[in-house]
Amino acid sequence: MTNPVLAELLRGDLVESRHSGAIAVSDPDGRLVLSLGDVTRPIYPRSAVKAFQALPLLESGAADRLGLTDAEIALAVSSHGGEARHVEVATAMLAKAGRDVRTLECGVHAPSTRKAADALVRAGQKPSALHNNCSGKHAGFICLACAEGVEPEGYVRRSHPVMRAVMGAVADMSGAALEGAGVGTDGCSIPTQAAPLAGIARGFARLGTGLHLGPERARAAARIRRAVAADPFLVAGTGRFCTAIMAIFGERVFVKTGAEGVFCACFPELGYGVALKCDDGATRAAEVMMANVIARFLPLSENESEALRPFLAPIQKNWNGIEVGLLRAAGAMG
Amino acid sequence: MTNPVLAELLRGDLVESRHSGAIAVSDPDGRLVLSLGDVTRPIYPRSAVKAFQALPLLESGAADRLGLTDAEIALAVSSHGGEARHVEVATAMLAKAGRDVRTLECGVHAPSTRKAADALVRAGQKPSALHNNCSGKHAGFICLACAEGVEPEGYVRRSHPVMRAVMGAVADMSGAALEGAGVGTDGCSIPTQAAPLAGIARGFARLGTGLHLGPERARAAARIRRAVAADPFLVAGTGRFCTAIMAIFGERVFVKTGAEGVFCACFPELGYGVALKCDDGATRAAEVMMANVIARFLPLSENESEALRPFLAPIQKNWNGIEVGLLRAAGAMG
Repeated sequence: MTNPVLAELLRGDLVESRHSGAIAVSDPDGRLVLSLGDVTRPIYPRSAVKAFQALPLLESGAADRLGLTDAEIALAVSSHGGEARHVEVATAMLAKAGRDVRTLECGVHAPSTRKAADALVRAGQKPSALHNNCSGKHAGFICLACAEGVEPEGYVRRSHPVMRAVMGAVADMSGAALEGAGVGTDGCSIPTQAAPLAGIARGFARLGTGLHLGPERARAAARIRRAVAADPFLVAGTGRFCTAIMAIFGERVFVKTGAEGVFCACFPELGYGVALKCDDGATRAAEVMMANVIARFLPLSENESEALRPFLAPIQKNWNGIEVGLLRAAGAMG
Repeated sequence: MTNPVLAELLRGDLVESRHSGAIAVSDPDGRLVLSLGDVTRPIYPRSAVKAFQALPLLESGAADRLGLTDAEIALAVSSHGGEARHVEVATAMLAKAGRDVRTLECGVHAPSTRKAADALVRAGQKPSALHNNCSGKHAGFICLACAEGVEPEGYVRRSHPVMRAVMGAVADMSGAALEGAGVGTDGCSIPTQAAPLAGIARGFARLGTGLHLGPERARAAARIRRAVAADPFLVAGTGRFCTAIMAIFGERVFVKTGAEGVFCACFPELGYGVALKCDDGATRAAEVMMANVIARFLPLSENESEALRPFLAPIQKNWNGIEVGLLRAAGAMG
């Protein structure tokens, strides 16, 4: 049951902290090309499967009927920093559905980017549901409801037609639970469905290749991949791992974080999907694990290699800017 | 080498994340009354041993010569939230040494309390070294230097007479390293000295009882315990674990957090000292471990039991205030 240590924090000459975890890298048929730790135990993928959750918006034709742009599709699969442009795009999506911030049911939190939070305070404004990191995903749910002629109110509940479609897509793509012990409640109040890392990784291999997907779903997957690669800022934001990695690799890597140390990715040219979870929920360690998975599998140009290097073993600096240590891959990932 | 899981995050009916760690509870002679995981491997105690680091300020007579108040002593052992009162007390300490913010060498960061950070932005001010969570400790170092007639500049370096005294006290109290591989650099630029949890716990048992300490050190330890119990807000701040726990227990529990999942405590009436570390560095889990150590060892009144309960298994709410899970003790602590 105990997963191996896959990342460690070095301070001076001692390992100060240790992060264990599990990693699955799969092809579209479910063949595992890498399996570390327990990849069969169900985990909550949280926001890492927003791309699966956005499939109904596209494959239903709702996105086209409302004329959603690629930027809006990218925001629908984002966990954004609540920066000005994120808020603008979410507002525009809601307007296309004939709605506004009042229809969002994700709850309110301050922008997760410090700079954006400070800017709001300086402007004397309070955060709204538009600043919630999930507002783009929720705006997508509202677009789906309105384009299909369904009242959006209560869309976060599993009995709502929108959430039934969303949960069905996640289940199809990953083998996730639809009910029972495997369904919890996410930070933004929609259900989060537990699935094994192996199943999630296979789903991402399919998202990246279109294999084993129907034609509408394969087209939807391709559009999502193009949309995020074209504007990776919208998927996360300033200083964020997902944005930085996709800015380096474009359509070669789709990567998405989820709360509690989850990361998913696909490498379309290889046909591989990736799903990993740091046992203790630490994003810092999950990022190092994902960066090292990319380095292990993806052929890198010299420029890409150079650009990826800081993410493989991030240097830790203190408040005076002094280097005090680094976070690095360990054990089977080291 | 692998420590046991001691805390876990439950979401819905599934365990979402797991935290392993080690815990030592010792008497002043070094007899362990609880030992979970590896308590002999050196760990960096970070800010959890600020009480040890403050001993030279008191036992040298410097604190008395400068007329430091109990509030100022409490701030000297704090990791504070950068709130207005923390900044005021740090400023007053520096003034007693004939110095100001410019002598602080801890570096600058925004107040760690969101409310205090927002207030600063609203006032159009930038954070200074006074807002650094370690400014009280550093002000104490500067007071020690000035009262002893030593130039404070460079006090963060191990060659400085102040830091030699501070490191000596930590080594005496815990068996910590004075040089070599066991000495790293802390967030505030002073050395952090690795020591085994068993040694640190023994040191806290001595801090709590005065046993095996010389008379000046025993008096210094008693004054620190009284000072923090009299004003626990100064040791941490609004919404913080250390402040809340000491507000419940007064002089019955001294508790102090350190970065990367460290917690130390002493229970003077039992003569026990506690040192624990969550392997992955998570404060949330270290807090749950410490709350459960308190519940296991300390006789509790009904009121104390009621007040401690929320810390034993903190309920997790999402952005809409919906309960989505809880963090709880597990394994040998469960």
